Amino acid sequence: MSDLAPVLDHLDRSIDKSLERLFSLLRIKSISTDPAFAAECRKAAEWLVEDLKSIGFDAGIRDTAGHPMVVAHHEGEGPHVLFYGHYDVQPVDPLELWEDDPFDPQVKEIEPGRKAITGRGSSDDKGQLMTFIEACRAYKAVHGKLPCRISILFEGEEESGSPSLRPFLEANRDELKAEFALVCDTAMWDRETPAVCVGLRGLVGEEITVKAADRDLHSGFFGGAAANPITVLARVLGALHDDNGRVTIPGFYEGVEETPERILKSWEGLGQTTESFLGPIGLSRLSGETGRSALELVWARPTAEINGISGGYTGEGFKTVIPAEASAKVSFRLVHAQDPDKIRAAFRAFVEARIPSDCSVEFHKHGGSPAFQLDYDMPLVTKAQAALTEEWSKPAVAIAMGGSIPIVGDFRKMLGMESLLVGFGLPDDRIHSPNEKYDVTSFHRGQRSWARILDMLSK
Amino acid sequence: MSDLAPVLDHLDRSIDKSLERLFSLLRIKSISTDPAFAAECRKAAEWLVEDLKSIGFDAGIRDTAGHPMVVAHHEGEGPHVLFYGHYDVQPVDPLELWEDDPFDPQVKEIEPGRKAITGRGSSDDKGQLMTFIEACRAYKAVHGKLPCRISILFEGEEESGSPSLRPFLEANRDELKAEFALVCDTAMWDRETPAVCVGLRGLVGEEITVKAADRDLHSGFFGGAAANPITVLARVLGALHDDNGRVTIPGFYEGVEETPERILKSWEGLGQTTESFLGPIGLSRLSGETGRSALELVWARPTAEINGISGGYTGEGFKTVIPAEASAKVSFRLVHAQDPDKIRAAFRAFVEARIPSDCSVEFHKHGGSPAFQLDYDMPLVTKAQAALTEEWSKPAVAIAMGGSIPIVGDFRKMLGMESLLVGFGLPDDRIHSPNEKYDVTSFHRGQRSWARILDMLSK
Repeated sequence: MSDLAPVLDHLDRSIDKSLERLFSLLRIKSISTDPAFAAECRKAAEWLVEDLKSIGFDAGIRDTAGHPMVVAHHEGEGPHVLFYGHYDVQPVDPLELWEDDPFDPQVKEIEPGRKAITGRGSSDDKGQLMTFIEACRAYKAVHGKLPCRISILFEGEEESGSPSLRPFLEANRDELKAEFALVCDTAMWDRETPAVCVGLRGLVGEEITVKAADRDLHSGFFGGAAANPITVLARVLGALHDDNGRVTIPGFYEGVEETPERILKSWEGLGQTTESFLGPIGLSRLSGETGRSALELVWARPTAEINGISGGYTGEGFKTVIPAEASAKVSFRLVHAQDPDKIRAAFRAFVEARIPSDCSVEFHKHGGSPAFQLDYDMPLVTKAQAALTEEWSKPAVAIAMGGSIPIVGDFRKMLGMESLLVGFGLPDDRIHSPNEKYDVTSFHRGQRSWARILDMLSK
Repeated sequence: MSDLAPVLDHLDRSIDKSLERLFSLLRIKSISTDPAFAAECRKAAEWLVEDLKSIGFDAGIRDTAGHPMVVAHHEGEGPHVLFYGHYDVQPVDPLELWEDDPFDPQVKEIEPGRKAITGRGSSDDKGQLMTFIEACRAYKAVHGKLPCRISILFEGEEESGSPSLRPFLEANRDELKAEFALVCDTAMWDRETPAVCVGLRGLVGEEITVKAADRDLHSGFFGGAAANPITVLARVLGALHDDNGRVTIPGFYEGVEETPERILKSWEGLGQTTESFLGPIGLSRLSGETGRSALELVWARPTAEINGISGGYTGEGFKTVIPAEASAKVSFRLVHAQDPDKIRAAFRAFVEARIPSDCSVEFHKHGGSPAFQLDYDMPLVTKAQAALTEEWSKPAVAIAMGGSIPIVGDFRKMLGMESLLVGFGLPDDRIHSPNEKYDVTSFHRGQRSWARILDMLSK
């Protein structure tokens, strides 16, 4: 730890200066989705290039069809890592709901003894990405070198669907490939408990349309003799789950693993109960597979959800119609090794087996991506956990997330590397909403955490 | 038959004059749903009053909150009957689809040897109601009297929901009550086969809304743990029928009778097959209860149909939402002695038993009316069948109809009298559509049929 201690000391002494640097970046209105702010996006990229150059990175702007990428490299003795973040931010409307100017950041005491940095991007993702740069800066200041070989990729379109990212990865595969990626765009479990995210559910989207008669029918003349496509659809969708909440599609659970007992225990230790999970949204009873906790259900189990359904007359009053068609949007959250293509095919077969012979069904594909799951015992994970545990007051927990982060799938598929997701956001950061903030503690101890992680990875 | 033969002869001789009278009535634009035609509605009522007075009826206009009623009475030796019809017509748009002016009727040869009266209301219901008046006129011309005591009720709001009818029946109960009602607003089976309609299905409408979380949820964060109201709804609606098409609601078939074998045989004799019934709408396989013919299913069996469903995101593309609620409109066609209130209660219990304890369901009532069913052996029915069989080339069939005609329920419930439904419309009359017509044969032999029915009823 002889290399690390002075770096941590340096970070403690330079917190004011690091805040000033973050404020400079936060003042740039890099809203990617609004073309009016294109010049501001470029300005943020240029600011980062200059900052990285100032600490010895070989950094440059890379133009794309959209907003530019920032790519930087620095030599080092340890393993080669690629750090990813994004400099673009969400729009700020409705502006009238902000207590302070979203682009004039400040440090405010938000409750006794708790200070936060205000402004759009303070948490997502400018504050988070700067924790990593500050850790690098401190290493250079103290030792004149970095503990790992570090490449950096910052994009400027994360908040608008990352249209340029895949073409860019494809075109710069060799340059960007590292042993693994570090991604700082996630959150801690709570203010005291750091987290490493090792699982993200995948997604398969399907739209189905059941067609029966070639026109809408009067239910008086045809009711009870002609197929009703809403009834057909309801019977299909009503059969998707058994009485224990398991998905009934044959082969659906292929590739799904049971989560190790010690991981389930660690999740139990987080204190999330059915009540604390469902209470805030007005529910009290877990849906889905029986006998599993809320966190296991959303982090480590696959789902079949109906996201939309429509058919027949849905306006005011009543119309005794048997419609010609009815449709639904259905999505599946995938875990572990579930194959999106197989799931899609199995669902389609499941539906087709339930369509009367004189009716038809049309399928429309809406995206598909596999889950991302690291082995809980992988050194990348356990080292990061150890580093975080030393920094924070509670042991770092290996968590999963119910939603998708497409970049980790792209890194795995296109560059053949796994991603470590570590972040210091908090559930109350209000990202994407008015009054976004980032705790000063997140910013400061985030820097220290990255210093520790880089040190641990170098060993 | 001595009284009848000269009446029939008179009708044959006066066909041209009867057509002139009908044309006068058809030229009046009595569209009830459009306030711009209110004066025309009154004009049609007044025309009918004058015509009825001219053949000795004590006839008058009766004002209502909407368009006026026509009420008329005439003494007679036989039983007291109430004849019902309506003088209002459907709107005519889209006008450009009419081959001839809808309010300038004419007789056209529509195929070799087949002549029809053109114009809005020619079939529904001015042509039909005039068949009865012409039969009365001929009796008066030949014998100076009528074979039955006859009251007449014509309304002017049948095409716009009959809002004034029930209050009017309620207020004039004693005056309108007869031994039974004759209603001329239905059709023949085909051009050669007359029909008496002895069954009409009832209707219960229900709208249900399933509510789960108190807001829309992101399926990544909550999918698999929080109740999805669309899934709950699909499971409820998907369970409404068993694999043999029978409705699974406990007690649903209480009051449903099996149709007599000889009636089923007579329906078979009509030559309607699954192919001829479903082919024209692009289907080939009977839905509903297995082992029953198309006609039995729509005429004599109850149904549960989903008429509309909606929930979640139904626009273009995809949104991984778990919505806060989902809803459906469900209707039940009732037969025989099924009780609308019991069916509604049984459905609600069926739904409630399938709602998770932390979700809720709201019901919204949309109307309810029992079925109308005469005994196939009732003298009123068999006499009418005998009279029609004498007039037409094929035996009159006792049929049912899949839809509802509210007036017959009101006559039964409010005036305690049954209704005989006999009409001479044809399936290709295009009622409610452009180019409505009424076969001259329907008009002429319809008059003769009523003369025969009145004669038969007087015996």
